[in-house]
Amino acid sequence: MATTSAVTDQAILDRLTQLQIAHPDVIAHSAVKGSAEWAAALSVAQPTAAQTPLTKTLLFKPKTAKSATPTPVLILAKDSTETPSAAIGKLLELKELRLASEDLIKEVIPSAASKDDVSALALPSPIPETLHLLVDAALVQSEEQHALHLTSSASTILLKGSDIKSYFDSLVQGDGVKVVDFAELKANAPAPALKAAPKEKKAEPTPAAAKEEDDKYEMAIRFKKDEDFSGWYTDVLLKGQMLDYYDISGCYILRPWSYTIWQTIQTWFDDEIKKLGVQDCYFPMFVSNARLEKEKDHIEGFAPEVAWVTRAGQSDLDEPIAIRPTSETVMYPYYSKWINSHRDLPLKLNQWNSVVRWEFKNPQPFLRTREFLWQEGHTAFLHKAEADKEVMDILELYRKVYTDLLAVPVVPGKKSENEKFAGGDYTTTVEGFIPTTGRGIQGATSHHLGQNFSKMFDISVESPIKSEGRLHAYQNSWGLSTRSLGVMVMVHGDDQGLVLPPRVALQQVVIVPVGLSKGEGKNEPIYDACLKLERELVAAGIRAKADLREGYTPGWKFNDWEMRGVPLRLELGPRDIAANTTLAVRRLDNHKSSFPLPDIANTVRTYLDEIQTSMYERAKEKFDSHLVPVTNWDDVVPTLDAKNVLVLPWCEDGQCEDDIKERSKSQANKGEAEDNKAPSAGAKSLCIPFDQKRFGAFPDGENQKCIQCGKKAKSWTMFGRSKLCHDLVYL
Amino acid sequence: MATTSAVTDQAILDRLTQLQIAHPDVIAHSAVKGSAEWAAALSVAQPTAAQTPLTKTLLFKPKTAKSATPTPVLILAKDSTETPSAAIGKLLELKELRLASEDLIKEVIPSAASKDDVSALALPSPIPETLHLLVDAALVQSEEQHALHLTSSASTILLKGSDIKSYFDSLVQGDGVKVVDFAELKANAPAPALKAAPKEKKAEPTPAAAKEEDDKYEMAIRFKKDEDFSGWYTDVLLKGQMLDYYDISGCYILRPWSYTIWQTIQTWFDDEIKKLGVQDCYFPMFVSNARLEKEKDHIEGFAPEVAWVTRAGQSDLDEPIAIRPTSETVMYPYYSKWINSHRDLPLKLNQWNSVVRWEFKNPQPFLRTREFLWQEGHTAFLHKAEADKEVMDILELYRKVYTDLLAVPVVPGKKSENEKFAGGDYTTTVEGFIPTTGRGIQGATSHHLGQNFSKMFDISVESPIKSEGRLHAYQNSWGLSTRSLGVMVMVHGDDQGLVLPPRVALQQVVIVPVGLSKGEGKNEPIYDACLKLERELVAAGIRAKADLREGYTPGWKFNDWEMRGVPLRLELGPRDIAANTTLAVRRLDNHKSSFPLPDIANTVRTYLDEIQTSMYERAKEKFDSHLVPVTNWDDVVPTLDAKNVLVLPWCEDGQCEDDIKERSKSQANKGEAEDNKAPSAGAKSLCIPFDQKRFGAFPDGENQKCIQCGKKAKSWTMFGRSKLCHDLVYL
Repeated sequence: MATTSAVTDQAILDRLTQLQIAHPDVIAHSAVKGSAEWAAALSVAQPTAAQTPLTKTLLFKPKTAKSATPTPVLILAKDSTETPSAAIGKLLELKELRLASEDLIKEVIPSAASKDDVSALALPSPIPETLHLLVDAALVQSEEQHALHLTSSASTILLKGSDIKSYFDSLVQGDGVKVVDFAELKANAPAPALKAAPKEKKAEPTPAAAKEEDDKYEMAIRFKKDEDFSGWYTDVLLKGQMLDYYDISGCYILRPWSYTIWQTIQTWFDDEIKKLGVQDCYFPMFVSNARLEKEKDHIEGFAPEVAWVTRAGQSDLDEPIAIRPTSETVMYPYYSKWINSHRDLPLKLNQWNSVVRWEFKNPQPFLRTREFLWQEGHTAFLHKAEADKEVMDILELYRKVYTDLLAVPVVPGKKSENEKFAGGDYTTTVEGFIPTTGRGIQGATSHHLGQNFSKMFDISVESPIKSEGRLHAYQNSWGLSTRSLGVMVMVHGDDQGLVLPPRVALQQVVIVPVGLSKGEGKNEPIYDACLKLERELVAAGIRAKADLREGYTPGWKFNDWEMRGVPLRLELGPRDIAANTTLAVRRLDNHKSSFPLPDIANTVRTYLDEIQTSMYERAKEKFDSHLVPVTNWDDVVPTLDAKNVLVLPWCEDGQCEDDIKERSKSQANKGEAEDNKAPSAGAKSLCIPFDQKRFGAFPDGENQKCIQCGKKAKSWTMFGRSKLCHDLVYL
Repeated sequence: MATTSAVTDQAILDRLTQLQIAHPDVIAHSAVKGSAEWAAALSVAQPTAAQTPLTKTLLFKPKTAKSATPTPVLILAKDSTETPSAAIGKLLELKELRLASEDLIKEVIPSAASKDDVSALALPSPIPETLHLLVDAALVQSEEQHALHLTSSASTILLKGSDIKSYFDSLVQGDGVKVVDFAELKANAPAPALKAAPKEKKAEPTPAAAKEEDDKYEMAIRFKKDEDFSGWYTDVLLKGQMLDYYDISGCYILRPWSYTIWQTIQTWFDDEIKKLGVQDCYFPMFVSNARLEKEKDHIEGFAPEVAWVTRAGQSDLDEPIAIRPTSETVMYPYYSKWINSHRDLPLKLNQWNSVVRWEFKNPQPFLRTREFLWQEGHTAFLHKAEADKEVMDILELYRKVYTDLLAVPVVPGKKSENEKFAGGDYTTTVEGFIPTTGRGIQGATSHHLGQNFSKMFDISVESPIKSEGRLHAYQNSWGLSTRSLGVMVMVHGDDQGLVLPPRVALQQVVIVPVGLSKGEGKNEPIYDACLKLERELVAAGIRAKADLREGYTPGWKFNDWEMRGVPLRLELGPRDIAANTTLAVRRLDNHKSSFPLPDIANTVRTYLDEIQTSMYERAKEKFDSHLVPVTNWDDVVPTLDAKNVLVLPWCEDGQCEDDIKERSKSQANKGEAEDNKAPSAGAKSLCIPFDQKRFGAFPDGENQKCIQCGKKAKSWTMFGRSKLCHDLVYL
C-alpha cells in the first residue's frame, strides 16, 4: 500500500463543507479510550450531546501470506452494533480477521497517533483499492446524529447517518461505499456456541512493544494540574487506577486502589464511633412514596433527584418505589416505634451504605456522582446537652479522618444560617481547600437537628422527671462520603499523578530491582533480594510489594508507581546489595535517601510516618497561606482572584451574606471581563471557624464593623468560591 | 359505662351473615403490631391479599374531669388516612384527645387482649351512647376490599367499604354511623407548623406497668419451634431485635443485633481473602439494559426478578436502568478491558454490596428477601489449576464462617450437574441442615466458571509461552450472603428465643443485679459491683454490659436477655458480693455455675469458648444423627419423613436425579395423603460430600448399585428436601 500523508481535521471539515453537509461545532474533550470514556467525556464537554449515539471504527487484518499485500478491512458502525468478525470474514472471503497492529493502523490512517485515534473520517482520499470499507446499514439509514472522532480521540463531530454515507461515497471510487446489515449478517452466520465476540480491545503488545507503547501513550498524565485542572483530575484518577468510567453516566467503578482507602476510613471511623456507643445497622435501600413524602419540606430538595423503580421483571409495580437519597424518612418512623421510654434513649445508629441522587448537572468523580458511598449517623437523645456534645465529638472524628488519615488540612467551624442544613438547628463542618482552584470544599458535616424531626415523626417519651411531662428527643445526623477521596487526590496529586498518604495507601512501598543484566538467570540474586526485602517489610505490617514484572524497564516501573502515587520506592540493585543498602525515593518530592538494609522495617516505618506528616504540613502551609484575613472591601475580589479563601469580620446576618455574594460576583465579573474569562461565582460563607484566635483580635477590637454592611462584626468568617459538589448541604 | 361481655369472632361473622354481607374466608396469621407487620403477615398468609389496603382503629380519650363518665372516641379509617386528633377534638367539641389507656380499651372493647387487638368490628351491639364512633368517608365510599382485624390482631377479614358502613349502621342506634371526611377536616384545620402527628403508638407505660404489660404481651415467644416453625422464626427475629418489618414487602431492617454479626463475618472473611490476594472494590448498583442482556442465557434466570429504574425526579429515563441482581455482566466487560497481558492475571476482586431480586414468592427474613447483603468474589486466572485451588480455598473459608463463627455444622461438597450454577463448570457448596424441618439448606457456594464467561466477554491474553497462543482466562465466582444469619437463628434458637454464638454476639455477657432492696440508695453497692465487673470484662475485650435499668425485676431482665440470645448471664447480688463470686447462667442450656470474682475475665473468656464449642457440638450431633445412609429404596421416603437428610449410593446421572425427585415425591404424597397432610416435595441432591469416608465403604463395595437406577454408584450423595431460598443456585 502506498504511503499517504496524514489527513488533518481541517481537511475533513473542508470536505464536509464541499459536500454541503451541515453539522454542529466540533466538540473538543479529553482523549478517550473506548466508548464508556467517550460518552463520559462528551457529556462533560457538551451535556446536550450526552445522549448522542456513538460510532466505532474497527480495523481488521485477515490472515495472508507474509509477502502478500495486506487487504485490511475497516468497519464503521454504530457502537451498539455487533460486528462479528467471523461472519464478516466469510462475507469478504477473507480468513481469520484479527484487529490490526499499530503499524498497520498507521499505514491505513496515517493521522492516527494511537489505536484510540482510529477514525474512518481520517481515511485518505481516494481510499486505496486494497482496503475493504464496510459501513453499518443501521448507521447510514438513520437520520439521527451520531458521534464520530475527527483525527484524534480528543475531538468529536456529530453527523447524520445519511450524511456519513455521502461523505464516504465521496472517498470511494466506483460504486460508492459498501453498506452492510450486520444484524442480518449475524443472524445468518452459524451461531458459535459460547463463541467469543471479536476482541475489540487493544491487541496485546509484546513486552518490549508494551513498554514503548505504554511509555508513549499511557504513562504520562496528559494535563498539567495548573493548566487544565479538570482534565488533570480525571486523567489522574483513571491512570492512577482509582476508578474507571462506567457505561451509565455519573456512575463510576471504585477500583481497589480507591475502595481500599475508603475501607481504611471505614475501619478507623467505625471503631471510633463504637467507642461513643454508636451501633451499625442496615435499612433497605428502597423507600415507599408515602414515607418519602411524609415530610414534604425535607424531601423537596431531593425530589428532582430521586430515582424511581416502577417495574420488576415484566410487571409494573402498583406504586413507584424510590431509592433512598438519604435516610431520615426511612429511619425516623422506626425511631418513633422503638423509642417508647426514656430508657430507650440515647439511640445511636449508623449505616454504611450507598445513596442515589440522580443529578443532571455535570458529574464529577467522587465529588458529584449519582450513586455514592457514605456513612450516615442518626442519633436521638433525651437532653439537648448530650446531643450538642455528640455533634462536636463526631466533628472531631471527621477532622481526624482528614488531617490524620488523608493528610488534608481542614478548618472546623459552624455553617452560617444560610448554609446550614435546612432541616436542622445548626450545622458544623470541616472545610477543606483546593489550592489549585482556590476553592473551598465542605469535607463532612455534623448536624444538630433539634426537635424538628422528633416532632414530625413523634419521637417522644415521658420524662423520668414527672413534672416535665412528655419530651421530644433531640436528634443529630452526620455524614462523611467518598467525596473525601476526591479532596485527597485534588490536594496532594501532582503532574506525575497521584500522591497517596502512607496511612491509607493500599501499597505503601514498592521495591524495584535495578541494574539488571541481560543474561538469562543473571538477575535472580537481585530478585531474591527484592523478595526478601518485601517479606521483611510485610512481616512488620508494612504494605510493601516487589515489582518483578519482566519486560518493563526500571524507568517504566518508576513512572508507573509514581503515577499511582505509591508513597515510597525502594530501589535494589547489585551495588545496593553489595553495600547492604537500598535507595529510598519518596513520591512526595522525589527526595532520595540511602537506607541501610539492617533494621530496614523500622527505618521504613519511621520514614512513612515522616512522609505522612510532611504531606500534611505541606498542604497545611498552602491552606494557611491562602487563608487571608481581609478587612477592607476593596481587597475582597483581588484576594479571591488570587485563589484565596477570605477571612472576613462579619455580622453573621443572612441578608448580608447574600449581599456579599452578589457584590463579590458582580465585581469579579467586571474585573475578569477584561481577561475574557468566564464570569466567576461570588463568595459565600464557608464556615465560622471555632478557633477564632488563630486570626488574632479584630483590628478595631470591640468596635469592629462587618466588612459588608457596617454593623457590628461578630466573628472572623471564612468566605470563598465553593467547589461544585452535590447541591445539598446535607452531606 | 356498663360492663359488656366480649364479642367473639363468631358473633362478628354471624352478624355479617345476618346482614347478607359476603366476604372471603377469614385469614389467620401471626399476631401483629402496626401496619408494616400486618401487611407483611398478610402477604405471607395469603399472597393474593398482599396489596389489600389496611384499616386502622384508634381509640381516643378526651380530657374530662376525673369523676365524669368517659366519652371515648373510636375512629375507623383507612390506614393511609391522616386523622389529626386536634381537628377531631374540635369537631366533637372535646378537649385534648389522647390515645386511650389499656384500661379504657378493655372497657370499650372487652375482647381486646391488648392494644394491638383494638378492632372496631369487635364493638358491642348496641354501641354505648357515650362512645363517639367516627368512620372514614374515604373508606365507606370505596367499593374496594379493605383489611380489618376481627377480635385479635392475628386474624384479618376483607370487607368492601360500603359493607363496612352497613355493619356499623347495624350497631348504632338512631341515625347510623357518623362518617367523617378527614381530608377535608385536615384541610380546614389551622396548620400547626412542624406539629406532631397524633401519637399512634402505645402510650408509654409507667415502669411498673411496663413490666407487667411486657411480661404479658411482649416477652414470650408466641410459638413453639416444633409446632409452628415459621411463626416461631418470625417472632424470634422480631422480639430478639434482629430485624424489623419494613413498609415494603420483602425488605427488612437489619438492626444492630443482626447487622453486627454480619460485620463480624465481614471482618473475618475479608482478612482471610486479602491473605489470598483478593482486593475489594465497588461497582455501581446500576446496570444498563445493554449490559444486562449481553449474555441472554445467564440473565434469563434473573430477568423476571430484575427491578427497573425508569424515572429520575419527574423525568423519564431514555432507557430503563436495572438494579444489579448479581454482577457478572456488570464486572466482566471491565475484566476484558483491564486484562491485557498475562501479567494482569490473576485478577481477584471482591465486592461487599447489596443486590436486588424482586421475588414474588413469599418473602422470608434472611432467606428470601428482595434486597440482601452479600459478598461476591470474581476472579480470573491464567491456569485452570490455580482457579481450581482457589475454589476450594474459598469453600474452606465458607466452612469456617459457619462452623467457627456461627457454630453451625455444614458439609462441604460438590453440587450435582442438575444443581450446579448453570453458567459455570462446577459448583462447590457448604450444605447446612435445619433439624426442626429436616430440610437441607445451601450455606454458600464457590463456583468454577471455566472459560464460559471469559469467552463471552473476551477476557483473554497472549500466553507467555508463545506456542500456546491466545488464552482465555479461567474464572471463579463465590458468594456468601446474610442468609447465613437466618440459618444460625434456625439452628440454635429455642422456645425462649435467640441463642447466639459468643464469637459473633454483639453482647456476649449481661450482668444483672439481683437481691435488690426497696429503699432509696440501698442498691448502690450492688450497682457499683456490676459496673466494676462490666469494666473488668470490657477491659479484657469481652463484650459485656451491666443491665441497671430501673423499674424492671431481675426476672424480667432474665427473660429479656434470654429472648435476645445473650450467651452468658452473670448475676450479682449481696450474697454473691459477700462470697466474692457471681452466678453464671449460660443461655445454651441454662446451666448454672458459680465463678469466683478474682480473675473473672479469664474465667469468662474460657467459658465463652466452651459455650461456642458446645453449641457447635450440639448442633453437629443433631446434624450427624439426621444424616442417614440409606441403601434400600423402601427406606427413602420414611427416612425423609422422619426429617432426615438421606445419604444415597448414587450414579451422579442427571436424569436419575430427576427420577429420584419424582419417585420420592409421589410416594411421599401417597404416604401422607392418609394423614391428610399437604403434599411434600421430593428429594433433590444437596451435594456430593468431599469427605466420602465418613459414610464408610459401600455395602456392596465396588459393585454398589445406584439406589434408584441400578447403574454403578459413584458416590455417597446427600439428598433431601431443601429449604426454600432464592431460586437460583447462584448465591
